[in-house]
Amino acid sequence: MGKEKINFNLKTPKGTKDWSGSDALLRDRIFTTIADVFKRHGGTALDTPVFELREILAGKYGEDSKLIYDLQDQGGEICSLRYDLTVPFARWLAMNPDVRSMKRYHIAKVYRRDQPAVSKGRMREFYQCDFDVAGTFDPMVPDAEVLKIVTEVFEGLGWQGRYSIKINHRKILDGVFEVCGVPAEKIRPISSAVDKLDKMPWADVRKEMVEEKGLDGAVADKIETYVVKKGTRDLLETLLKDEALLANASAKAGLEDMGLLMDYLEAFGVLDRISFDMSLARGLDYYTGVIYEVVTEGSAPAVSSSAAEAEKPQKSSKKSKSKGGNADDDDRSNDPTLGVGSVAAGGRYDNLVGMFLPKAQIPCVGVSFGVDRIFSITKARLEREQSAQALRNSEVDVFVMAFGGKGFTGMLKERMNVCQTLWNAGIKAEFSYKVKPKLPQQFKAAEQGGVPFAVILGEDELAQGKVRVKEMGLEEGHPEKEGVLVDLATLPAEVNARLARRQDQASAVTQQLEGLNVGASTN
Amino acid sequence: MGKEKINFNLKTPKGTKDWSGSDALLRDRIFTTIADVFKRHGGTALDTPVFELREILAGKYGEDSKLIYDLQDQGGEICSLRYDLTVPFARWLAMNPDVRSMKRYHIAKVYRRDQPAVSKGRMREFYQCDFDVAGTFDPMVPDAEVLKIVTEVFEGLGWQGRYSIKINHRKILDGVFEVCGVPAEKIRPISSAVDKLDKMPWADVRKEMVEEKGLDGAVADKIETYVVKKGTRDLLETLLKDEALLANASAKAGLEDMGLLMDYLEAFGVLDRISFDMSLARGLDYYTGVIYEVVTEGSAPAVSSSAAEAEKPQKSSKKSKSKGGNADDDDRSNDPTLGVGSVAAGGRYDNLVGMFLPKAQIPCVGVSFGVDRIFSITKARLEREQSAQALRNSEVDVFVMAFGGKGFTGMLKERMNVCQTLWNAGIKAEFSYKVKPKLPQQFKAAEQGGVPFAVILGEDELAQGKVRVKEMGLEEGHPEKEGVLVDLATLPAEVNARLARRQDQASAVTQQLEGLNVGASTN
Repeated sequence: MGKEKINFNLKTPKGTKDWSGSDALLRDRIFTTIADVFKRHGGTALDTPVFELREILAGKYGEDSKLIYDLQDQGGEICSLRYDLTVPFARWLAMNPDVRSMKRYHIAKVYRRDQPAVSKGRMREFYQCDFDVAGTFDPMVPDAEVLKIVTEVFEGLGWQGRYSIKINHRKILDGVFEVCGVPAEKIRPISSAVDKLDKMPWADVRKEMVEEKGLDGAVADKIETYVVKKGTRDLLETLLKDEALLANASAKAGLEDMGLLMDYLEAFGVLDRISFDMSLARGLDYYTGVIYEVVTEGSAPAVSSSAAEAEKPQKSSKKSKSKGGNADDDDRSNDPTLGVGSVAAGGRYDNLVGMFLPKAQIPCVGVSFGVDRIFSITKARLEREQSAQALRNSEVDVFVMAFGGKGFTGMLKERMNVCQTLWNAGIKAEFSYKVKPKLPQQFKAAEQGGVPFAVILGEDELAQGKVRVKEMGLEEGHPEKEGVLVDLATLPAEVNARLARRQDQASAVTQQLEGLNVGASTN
Repeated sequence: MGKEKINFNLKTPKGTKDWSGSDALLRDRIFTTIADVFKRHGGTALDTPVFELREILAGKYGEDSKLIYDLQDQGGEICSLRYDLTVPFARWLAMNPDVRSMKRYHIAKVYRRDQPAVSKGRMREFYQCDFDVAGTFDPMVPDAEVLKIVTEVFEGLGWQGRYSIKINHRKILDGVFEVCGVPAEKIRPISSAVDKLDKMPWADVRKEMVEEKGLDGAVADKIETYVVKKGTRDLLETLLKDEALLANASAKAGLEDMGLLMDYLEAFGVLDRISFDMSLARGLDYYTGVIYEVVTEGSAPAVSSSAAEAEKPQKSSKKSKSKGGNADDDDRSNDPTLGVGSVAAGGRYDNLVGMFLPKAQIPCVGVSFGVDRIFSITKARLEREQSAQALRNSEVDVFVMAFGGKGFTGMLKERMNVCQTLWNAGIKAEFSYKVKPKLPQQFKAAEQGGVPFAVILGEDELAQGKVRVKEMGLEEGHPEKEGVLVDLATLPAEVNARLARRQDQASAVTQQLEGLNVGASTN
């Protein structure tokens, strides 16, 4: 062992990375926040294998199929790594015909052999967090709940007023194209071109339509009059007065859906988070109804003025609540979130399950959260706000240490015993693995770990059944600066009381800023 | 879409399965229990890619390397799916030379192209839960904490008195083989033979040693006198009187380690969970110090009488606390856990990191929990104990429903609005997606989901700002059998109070039985 010459690359494969330390901890908290919302809405977990039979994935992703990772044929079945969580869910529904309806969530890694751009967060292995509702229900009710879930996730993450949900409807879009005179076979390519309006100006999109995709210039100009429209109820009302549109069956059905959806979003109290954006088209072929995409403040230059209006009251209320002095609220131009694109997206797909089992057609609607982007934005915000507490490596609350004069034994077993008491009470605790550690070393370890409390054992005090509880980093003059002597018997209660107090204080200061329950116990 | 003929297998790949419903929920709770223990001990999360460069895995698993899944060469790097979580951890340590010490945990799937035995829980894709301490410390201190963690995990799972930790030490074992006269090149093969003593009688093991591995019969007989020994401190004391053994440097070092370890386990209050078992050898080559394996009651016919003695007091205390009438405690012979083998295993491996970076030798000690086996045993126990609550699909606490007489509108938006109030208060709630659902349908949905509370909207009551809160399944004559009218303004508080009360009652009854916080809110 260890004798042979080492001549290999010590690295992770291209487009993959290790997650460790405070990054892993922060990402776990984002997962917990998202999963808690999913569970609150009755979501049940589904976990599928990381690879599927290759034929299950075939024909689902169009030209992106070339990005699928294949397993080597080592004898037996031919398999590929999953490309998303939606197709495995549809496969599962087809395999379980007794399940006619389900709210499922799935938080797991997916794999795409894309050209990675690690700095932009485009990886070959990355996490998706999906929530989907399968089943035949009255129109737009589950669709509205999925959008309510989107608001709860981002507000749970502390993004109040910093995100916007763009929505549109495939049937409205298809109707618009028909009304404008787009030939049937050009509807999907023209739809793809429209979807680029958040990245390029209309002139460029028009050029693509006319020069690349051979659309009549007059038709393109007619399309423009529709797809630049943004709003909420006002836009819906405008469109409902458009007689040409109302005469189109597809557009009419879509507009009716959109009306219902807005009513329901209002009942859920989240209509003001929505922007009805007719330029939203979404890439994937399988959507059949409402579609949506969540953009953050910085990444959404095209958010309509009416949606911005709707958000204003919230933003100012947030401002007044955040702690004074920090003028961070106005540095939008420096916002590191700029340009990261969408952070969640989804829509209704009524025909996917039928690709596996035509008899078992089960309509679905869902959303997928892009955790890597959400992570980057949240981390940048915490760093800006210098929430150092949020960037700890572990969650340890107590460091158990000992000191003594001449002939000090190190009190290892005593430290172990006190740790045991804390652990058995559910308290997160550590101690030095040295038999005879020096006190400054132990304090340094606690400081480096950001551990908030020290429990200090001294021989004389311990002989009287007492130990010292000391909050780290207290200012000079604080009544507990030198720590407090407590009975061993009441140590867990004393520590828990101080942890709760500290947590309350931290919440009061950072609740609005952080959103995430960062630094708090996750129990 | 959906038009082409479907001629493929609708299944998951061989040796893999989907996890859904109550199984997924129970498994998630096992993960949470385990992760909470890891965090309590200062563990930090590490997440590595599911595949590694193939050369990273090469030469680590001996002849089991043939079980590694390879990715197809699609241009670019040659990769394989990870076989365990230990080698990726060692690779990470070698890549991060600034990290000299770390407590890391990792809960993730690993992949082995073994012949699957789904009924026995042997899968090609399965989860491991690993905790490892890397770094140079005073002897046996982290080793003792890892074993303390093992006890906290199984006691957190409610397995008090139902498991035993077998420990041994590679240096003692190697010393024994040397003292008995095993030639150096035969030590590993003979060690492998000894490891089978939990599955076959000594006569068969002796036969393998002598006939297959060419060991002198007299040497084998001498080995027997050692490897049948089991005990705790008594065995250690016996061995410390064995002058031949003490004269062997390896055995002496191992016995000193074992003495320290027992002292530390006593300080941690868990020495009584340990059985020093000289037949434990463990398969993997890379162990260099203490080794251990956790067996459940039924799967451990060879547990020493002294260890069984030590566990007795606990067992009887458990019995006296569990609810009367259930005579389950004595059906050990029918225990479905029989023969499932070990549920956790690990040991010290000081040379693995050096295989990647000889300069950066970092000693490690760790443990891996076999979640699939733990899951099967826990599920069987819950089913035996008919803890129906534990086997729900989701965690929803409230079903919001409505009823009305002639001209009933369904009150969809009102139900949505009440759900919104509950969700915003963090309460898990559902409602029917039907515009006009019938009351019996709604009650049936709540019952099928095992939802404990109904919030019922009636038009007249709602006009007065009131709704009815009704606990499902109350007996006739219960004062709240027909539900209680509460003000909408206080609804979240009223629901939370009832959930807390119900939780307290459930805990009192099932705490000892279930161990897991089953049926409780996970917040």
